[in-house]
Amino acid sequence: MEFDDYFDEFTRRDWQERSDGGPVRLALIGLGWFTRAWALPGMEKTDLCEPTVAISGSKAKAEGVAEEHELEAGITYEEFHDGNATDAYDAIYVVTPNALHLDYVETAAELGKDVLCEKPMEATADRAERMVEVCAEHDVTLMIAYRMHTEPAVRRTKELVHEGFVGDVVRIHGHMSQLMLSEIDTGDVDQWRLDPELSGGCALMDIGIYPLNTARFVLDAEPTSVYGNTVSEHEPFSQVDEHVSFHLSFPDNVDAVCTASQNAHHSSHLRITGTDGQITLDPAFFEREARGITIERGGVETDIDFEQVDQLTEEFDYFAHCLLTDSDPLPDGRHGLTDLRIIEAIYESAEVGAPVDL
Amino acid sequence: MEFDDYFDEFTRRDWQERSDGGPVRLALIGLGWFTRAWALPGMEKTDLCEPTVAISGSKAKAEGVAEEHELEAGITYEEFHDGNATDAYDAIYVVTPNALHLDYVETAAELGKDVLCEKPMEATADRAERMVEVCAEHDVTLMIAYRMHTEPAVRRTKELVHEGFVGDVVRIHGHMSQLMLSEIDTGDVDQWRLDPELSGGCALMDIGIYPLNTARFVLDAEPTSVYGNTVSEHEPFSQVDEHVSFHLSFPDNVDAVCTASQNAHHSSHLRITGTDGQITLDPAFFEREARGITIERGGVETDIDFEQVDQLTEEFDYFAHCLLTDSDPLPDGRHGLTDLRIIEAIYESAEVGAPVDL
Repeated sequence: MEFDDYFDEFTRRDWQERSDGGPVRLALIGLGWFTRAWALPGMEKTDLCEPTVAISGSKAKAEGVAEEHELEAGITYEEFHDGNATDAYDAIYVVTPNALHLDYVETAAELGKDVLCEKPMEATADRAERMVEVCAEHDVTLMIAYRMHTEPAVRRTKELVHEGFVGDVVRIHGHMSQLMLSEIDTGDVDQWRLDPELSGGCALMDIGIYPLNTARFVLDAEPTSVYGNTVSEHEPFSQVDEHVSFHLSFPDNVDAVCTASQNAHHSSHLRITGTDGQITLDPAFFEREARGITIERGGVETDIDFEQVDQLTEEFDYFAHCLLTDSDPLPDGRHGLTDLRIIEAIYESAEVGAPVDL
Repeated sequence: MEFDDYFDEFTRRDWQERSDGGPVRLALIGLGWFTRAWALPGMEKTDLCEPTVAISGSKAKAEGVAEEHELEAGITYEEFHDGNATDAYDAIYVVTPNALHLDYVETAAELGKDVLCEKPMEATADRAERMVEVCAEHDVTLMIAYRMHTEPAVRRTKELVHEGFVGDVVRIHGHMSQLMLSEIDTGDVDQWRLDPELSGGCALMDIGIYPLNTARFVLDAEPTSVYGNTVSEHEPFSQVDEHVSFHLSFPDNVDAVCTASQNAHHSSHLRITGTDGQITLDPAFFEREARGITIERGGVETDIDFEQVDQLTEEFDYFAHCLLTDSDPLPDGRHGLTDLRIIEAIYESAEVGAPVDL
């Protein structure tokens, strides 16, 4: 990478070939905290998307959100399944509890609508696989909403790693933690993440997936074996993992050691140590705080300050761009399915107390 | 902790009850890079110690070092075992390859001399256990040279953790890496760390022991099971571990995930994440760079700059203080032996591909 370019083009959308076309009109399925606080405001700033339909279990809530954001329609889940308002949207964005994703995607695929689905894409790998199949059967695009893939801090890190800036990658540390019970879902939404039927798991499924997936993305490689340890200490977490530690063995002798907690001080980092240098993202993963980068090589260490992007805006425009250019998103259904297979292997490892090969 | 005290007494020697007495006269056994670059200069700055005898395989080298540092005598290993110059020293400091430690400690114990022995205390737990026994038999003090125990950054961190500053500790990350072949032992000393007979192991034994032991020290707890993965990638490391990842399960559901490498970018950190806050030491473990601390709690994050101490000076004065006050060092032989049992369990885990209980 040219020295100038790192500064001048830090936040460039290197994935973007064209900025015309669209807008892709999106129906938002699930109107919880994240949709209202992050997804809708992020979508309203995009170049290529437009939110047009709000879909919720409650007609009143759907219509309220539609009115507040000047959308074309607010409908219920049932009306969505019945094919209401299909003229008003081109694609859906699914933000419901994990175990409900598949049902909406099946309907969307049958309606010929493309899909952006929140991660983890489902509560089990089996259901995720069915999602991949149904989208293929109906020839609709399926993207999983890994916002780190379009986060400039992560893309620049991936570029530097692949250009050899840190030499051969040797070890990765990754972590994400928050006080889930007080930080998110304040107010009107039950903590469905505490229900294993709805979530499929908690610390690992909901936030451990960030260091896991970002390590896969930055390395452009898949782990071959995993080891995991889960803990449920306090009553609200009695049915799910409250804390998790996991170890990913990647090819070429690269190990990633990761931790996540839904009941610890808010913190996140990803540290990539190679033979020649090191890149640390800290904070790394939260949409609700500025990301930071520290780069080290040859005795020089520097902190990078950069103009922060809205991660949701980037993600939605990337999805729309894929649709408008008829190209496949990198985080497609198979990519998301791989995460679920890895996550299930980590849970299995924690259950049997031994590493699990993939 | 009082707010003022954190600032005013950051580098205070909270272990020190008296500063008179002594000096404790020390014989240095093994005159390699570390002894000459760090131990002797550090010892010369102490309040309570005085280096008096240099001991080496080469008479000329021993006498050369003795002359350069104005010591009372320079003798060979053989002369040491024969009881030469015993009037000139009160205790020994052992800095030879790991597998040779026991022989010198046995002689010292028989001579009634107290012992400060570098870590890891031996190449195997069996030999370490014999060292503990021989020192007990002859009623001499045995301290293992864990310089992080008297590093103010670590002591203040331990205090904050035990006062509940971070709440309940949830997860720990630890890492230490260096380019061993170019960073240390430049010149006149063979890389004995590459010889498993002399070292007992490399990445884990030599530097992985830092996050391992510092986690034990800060938590004041012992792991109950371990999982490890070792890698030997390049020819110089064909007989020993070049990189290691390991996972320590402590009581109260605290996990530490750690990595170390003898062939990666120079880096070290220890990060303690609790329910209420986080403390990060970075750089953490190298004597040859300033340590740093970042403290987070309640939405406030601060970097602590403090007057750096010479870690060797602190360690030697602590050892001398224990002798002069007839008190037991915290990092005694049993403490060091525990590390070797943990290390052997990690190597066993890496060998069998499964976690090992302790």
